[in-house]
Amino acid sequence: MNVLARPLVLSPADREAALTQVSGLVRSIPDFPAPGILFRDITPVLHDAAALDAAVRLHIDRIADLAGQIDRIVGIESRGFLFGMAVAHALGCGFVPVRKPGKLPAATVHQTYALEYGQDRLHMHADAVSPGDRVLVIDDLLATGGTAQAAAQLVEGLGGRVVACLFLIELAALGGRARLGDRRVESVIVY
Amino acid sequence: MNVLARPLVLSPADREAALTQVSGLVRSIPDFPAPGILFRDITPVLHDAAALDAAVRLHIDRIADLAGQIDRIVGIESRGFLFGMAVAHALGCGFVPVRKPGKLPAATVHQTYALEYGQDRLHMHADAVSPGDRVLVIDDLLATGGTAQAAAQLVEGLGGRVVACLFLIELAALGGRARLGDRRVESVIVY
Repeated sequence: MNVLARPLVLSPADREAALTQVSGLVRSIPDFPAPGILFRDITPVLHDAAALDAAVRLHIDRIADLAGQIDRIVGIESRGFLFGMAVAHALGCGFVPVRKPGKLPAATVHQTYALEYGQDRLHMHADAVSPGDRVLVIDDLLATGGTAQAAAQLVEGLGGRVVACLFLIELAALGGRARLGDRRVESVIVY
Repeated sequence: MNVLARPLVLSPADREAALTQVSGLVRSIPDFPAPGILFRDITPVLHDAAALDAAVRLHIDRIADLAGQIDRIVGIESRGFLFGMAVAHALGCGFVPVRKPGKLPAATVHQTYALEYGQDRLHMHADAVSPGDRVLVIDDLLATGGTAQAAAQLVEGLGGRVVACLFLIELAALGGRARLGDRRVESVIVY
């Protein structure tokens, strides 16, 4: 099933080149979506075919030791769908979308999580994970970790095992890694 | 850049087997999201690694003659992100997310389109398509064609050329194909 006819682990030189290529295209936009927030915009990485491929390879490089031991990748709506699907296809895993309320049509489980003001809720189809499934959670950004924690809890609530949480970008100052507790956390680029 | 170390065009037997595998996993859910609507749920296709790969191959099979002649794939938020990204990565194209208002952080162009009641708007980053770019528009579902038409208009407004619009599922009775006018329309499964 593995369609990547290339090594999963990058050489140090290839890793460095890929990181330079990808991080050079992440665009920082001040005051979005609210004043005082510096938004890390990954769309220029997506636009560029070579950078997109480099980013997929960097995701896989971070968890290469898990290749062949992942049943499903969970991607969090909606930017987690992007590399979630590309990595799932490249590694030969199934993909599970975790979505906002009202989007998934069949029976779901849900998890509430705290926002700065108020709370929100994520849903996953109840048949998306079976007991014993080895699951990789993917999102584009690890900030406070609230959504990733909720996604991990959904997986674990159905008896799945979160083998790692994988992010393109980690904003280290926001403490998301701590919020994810004992779970393995990997990120491609750390600010 | 092409990471699919396999033929782009499926043999008739492989195509038939892949279609059987994928269409057998599309789940029909009555009265979602509103009474009287029969929702075609693709999540069981995503969950299954082999079916996911078969679906990617069926997408590529439909537009195999365009391989190497596509610069960017446009995917429509949010289910269009799924196969949009997987196909973009497999074919070695860039990916452009078309999103709902308020989601894209840099300068955007936007297009209004009619809903059954009222209207909605889609945005694309203004730097996502350049004049002459050959663009494939991907979404999971072709229904009335309103969102796909809006996405195509965004591409064309920036001087790009829509080489095809590609869908996993087409609901033929809703006339989306006609709404897309002279543009090439391809779909994997037609109901």
